[in-house]
Amino acid sequence: MSVLPQRNIRLTLAYDGTDFFGWQVQKEGRTVQGVLEQALTRMHGHPVHLQGAGRTDTGVHACGQVANFFTDLDSIPPERFRDAFNSYLPHDVRVLHSAAVPESFNAKSCAIMRVYAYNLYVAPVVLPQYRRYCWRMRRAPDVALLNRLAAQLVGTHNFASFAAAGDATKSRVRRVAAASFYPQGPFLVFRISASSFLWKMVRVMLGTMVELEQEGSGPERLAEILRLQDRKIAGSTAPARGLFLERIIYDEENPGPF
Amino acid sequence: MSVLPQRNIRLTLAYDGTDFFGWQVQKEGRTVQGVLEQALTRMHGHPVHLQGAGRTDTGVHACGQVANFFTDLDSIPPERFRDAFNSYLPHDVRVLHSAAVPESFNAKSCAIMRVYAYNLYVAPVVLPQYRRYCWRMRRAPDVALLNRLAAQLVGTHNFASFAAAGDATKSRVRRVAAASFYPQGPFLVFRISASSFLWKMVRVMLGTMVELEQEGSGPERLAEILRLQDRKIAGSTAPARGLFLERIIYDEENPGPF
Repeated sequence: MSVLPQRNIRLTLAYDGTDFFGWQVQKEGRTVQGVLEQALTRMHGHPVHLQGAGRTDTGVHACGQVANFFTDLDSIPPERFRDAFNSYLPHDVRVLHSAAVPESFNAKSCAIMRVYAYNLYVAPVVLPQYRRYCWRMRRAPDVALLNRLAAQLVGTHNFASFAAAGDATKSRVRRVAAASFYPQGPFLVFRISASSFLWKMVRVMLGTMVELEQEGSGPERLAEILRLQDRKIAGSTAPARGLFLERIIYDEENPGPF
Repeated sequence: MSVLPQRNIRLTLAYDGTDFFGWQVQKEGRTVQGVLEQALTRMHGHPVHLQGAGRTDTGVHACGQVANFFTDLDSIPPERFRDAFNSYLPHDVRVLHSAAVPESFNAKSCAIMRVYAYNLYVAPVVLPQYRRYCWRMRRAPDVALLNRLAAQLVGTHNFASFAAAGDATKSRVRRVAAASFYPQGPFLVFRISASSFLWKMVRVMLGTMVELEQEGSGPERLAEILRLQDRKIAGSTAPARGLFLERIIYDEENPGPF
């Protein structure tokens, strides 16, 4: 079988992170990559590796994760992998789209931008249907102040203050292209796009901004936290359940799924 | 304790019906009323009956169910029952609001209108976070045709064609005040209000309208189904998971929670 030409298939994925120990395969615990690779193995009759664009943590959701794999199954047209795959998957993971892409496409290394969205919910009580997908705020925040705080994050900075202690990457410099809060449906959504993110960066940023807003601190305080490059100075980490990996953006040579 | 003055407390309730065998207490199976009465019993130290405005079936959700109960607990201000109650409840049932109401208020008999909403989702694949709360349609329906069908249901009619076989009520005559489809957030929502509903009436109506739309039948066919007063002529019952009891409306002497 190894002499057959292998096609490179790109998947756009959505998952409810509630019952997963994150994206990446681990020795123990149900993971999104693990569930998807099990389905691929059943479809192919031999192990198949899946490359995801980004790892998501335990409890973090996705509605636009991207992954790719190489297949020797020439009986399935590329766009049909979506339905074939979904018939093997549990209902908390869905393939939204599948397509053939050039051999050079790699979901992780070709990605030029990642977009995350975080759902805040302002109410005394969370409606049960939203309970797995948002973080509740007790009072309505000053959205203009939150946006002035978020504006400080835009640009190329060393984000060490917002990286979880265990982050193993060497450089803490990242480029944030956009960061803003605005109402969307029942939520106040914080949306941020960057070339890539440090471990737990979005959740530490959000937890910090919510704390600063609550104490009425202005953007100069956030600029100071950023400048000090010290995780201990930033705020606490917002819960995973509000966070969605929303979209992965690729360059023109490797256009993404949208 | 029986000589203490009893206060009448009205609750506005939301629940995720997925893991409940409906509203009403049964000999076996987890029900919303059962879970709420267990919490009341723990709070009071003796059994307390809860009167709901309407029964919802297995798998049906609510975001504006109303119920009332009489309490001799004078240590809790009426509006604080919400938070006290929620601390005893699982996360798939929430008290949204609590208030003292006149002794004459009965959540069921004082209700003059019930409003239900049904979520349709038009897409090849349902996003996992919506999977418990909608019914998927494979192609975009003709919303104008759906609304012309729905218009046939408005008014006072014998709705025997849309009542589940086991419905035990004598009269099948009900007054539908409004019925329409319109896009709301990610869904196409069918919203209907009536004095009261027959068993599974909303779901049979919706299943029928979706089938008529798919075969291109016009409003005259729905009028005929209504006129024949025969359940076998109507369409199939839409799944419970798309249906929400959204609001109960009371008269001016017994104003509701909104």
